[in-house]
Amino acid sequence: MGRPKQERAVQTREAILRAAAEVFDEYGYAGASVNRILERAGTTAGAMYFHFKSKEGLARAVMGAQPQTIVPLLDSQGLQRLVDITMIWSFQLQRDPLLRAGVRLATEQSGLQDATSYVEWAQIMADCLVVASDKGELQAGVDPQETAEFVVEACTGMQIYSSVTTGRQDLPERVVRMWHLLLPGIAVPAVVARTEVSPSRVRLPEHAAD
Amino acid sequence: MGRPKQERAVQTREAILRAAAEVFDEYGYAGASVNRILERAGTTAGAMYFHFKSKEGLARAVMGAQPQTIVPLLDSQGLQRLVDITMIWSFQLQRDPLLRAGVRLATEQSGLQDATSYVEWAQIMADCLVVASDKGELQAGVDPQETAEFVVEACTGMQIYSSVTTGRQDLPERVVRMWHLLLPGIAVPAVVARTEVSPSRVRLPEHAAD
Repeated sequence: MGRPKQERAVQTREAILRAAAEVFDEYGYAGASVNRILERAGTTAGAMYFHFKSKEGLARAVMGAQPQTIVPLLDSQGLQRLVDITMIWSFQLQRDPLLRAGVRLATEQSGLQDATSYVEWAQIMADCLVVASDKGELQAGVDPQETAEFVVEACTGMQIYSSVTTGRQDLPERVVRMWHLLLPGIAVPAVVARTEVSPSRVRLPEHAAD
Repeated sequence: MGRPKQERAVQTREAILRAAAEVFDEYGYAGASVNRILERAGTTAGAMYFHFKSKEGLARAVMGAQPQTIVPLLDSQGLQRLVDITMIWSFQLQRDPLLRAGVRLATEQSGLQDATSYVEWAQIMADCLVVASDKGELQAGVDPQETAEFVVEACTGMQIYSSVTTGRQDLPERVVRMWHLLLPGIAVPAVVARTEVSPSRVRLPEHAAD
């Protein structure tokens, strides 16, 4: 028993997390007040502190939630999966406040900035590249970990560049260009030829926040 | 005549710019006060406002000064020049407050952030790639402008990744890895083979700030 209560708790936590993401996305870490987050979530300070210890704890949860906005949407393996992660990311960053806030908090040079979300993304991508390596998709000498870190770096800078020049409108296009430049140095020719790098691969579900 | 006076003005401007860079590097844009900058520069508000209209004007000058910390140190052409820019940048970012502050101001999502310094870097890099293209160094279909923008994006994210994981200690190494991944997709094989990607190419002058 007690299931409905537990479900409500999960829903409340999610509502607070989404509200916090919207406020962090709009105002940054320093500019986001707990009161504004509570107002946006339509909840009480007690409920918030039950789930998150502090504004910092809330911000860390938002940063840590980035992968959950993308990973459940994947159904490919190996190098194609890595390409799909970056492609879906480029679309979700235009529409999902949870991902957008996570990225803003992680790139701001506030006291909050640490390596966690970068290292987590690199791990997720390295896992794809280890599978790719086992499947014989990679060229000899390509290191999954180093390559994964480079893709995280490139995506991090790419979203900043796209953000300041086009408000992220051309982000998917920039991801496509990255893969056209990178694939020949990473994959064996047959895999370069068959890997699909196209926005049309991405089918995003209708989103609660829309 | 009047040359010495003009020289003193140039020196004062440079001293204010360097002091501002140190303060912006340490405190970010919002945290940097004009008083602290004046104290650091050992100059008066009058002298500062003679050269820069406002704190914002000063910050924009710092952001715009990034290339002058690198470009005068180059003596190569084409693709090698592009590689050298990124290699020297990775070392200067560890030791030149003017470059470091420019990068911090350009990546902070403050009201100040705009596309100028990104677009300027992309232009400097695209110029190298146009020369490379004229010299037959690039593979067919490689677009100088798009490739230059991708290198700016990758370097932007790379310095953040390196900063949060190793305090920028491994930045030169990450630049080397980038070129090993990128060159095969950009350059013709003979140029891939002869392009030097090594920290030992870089000979930095003794620096005034050291």
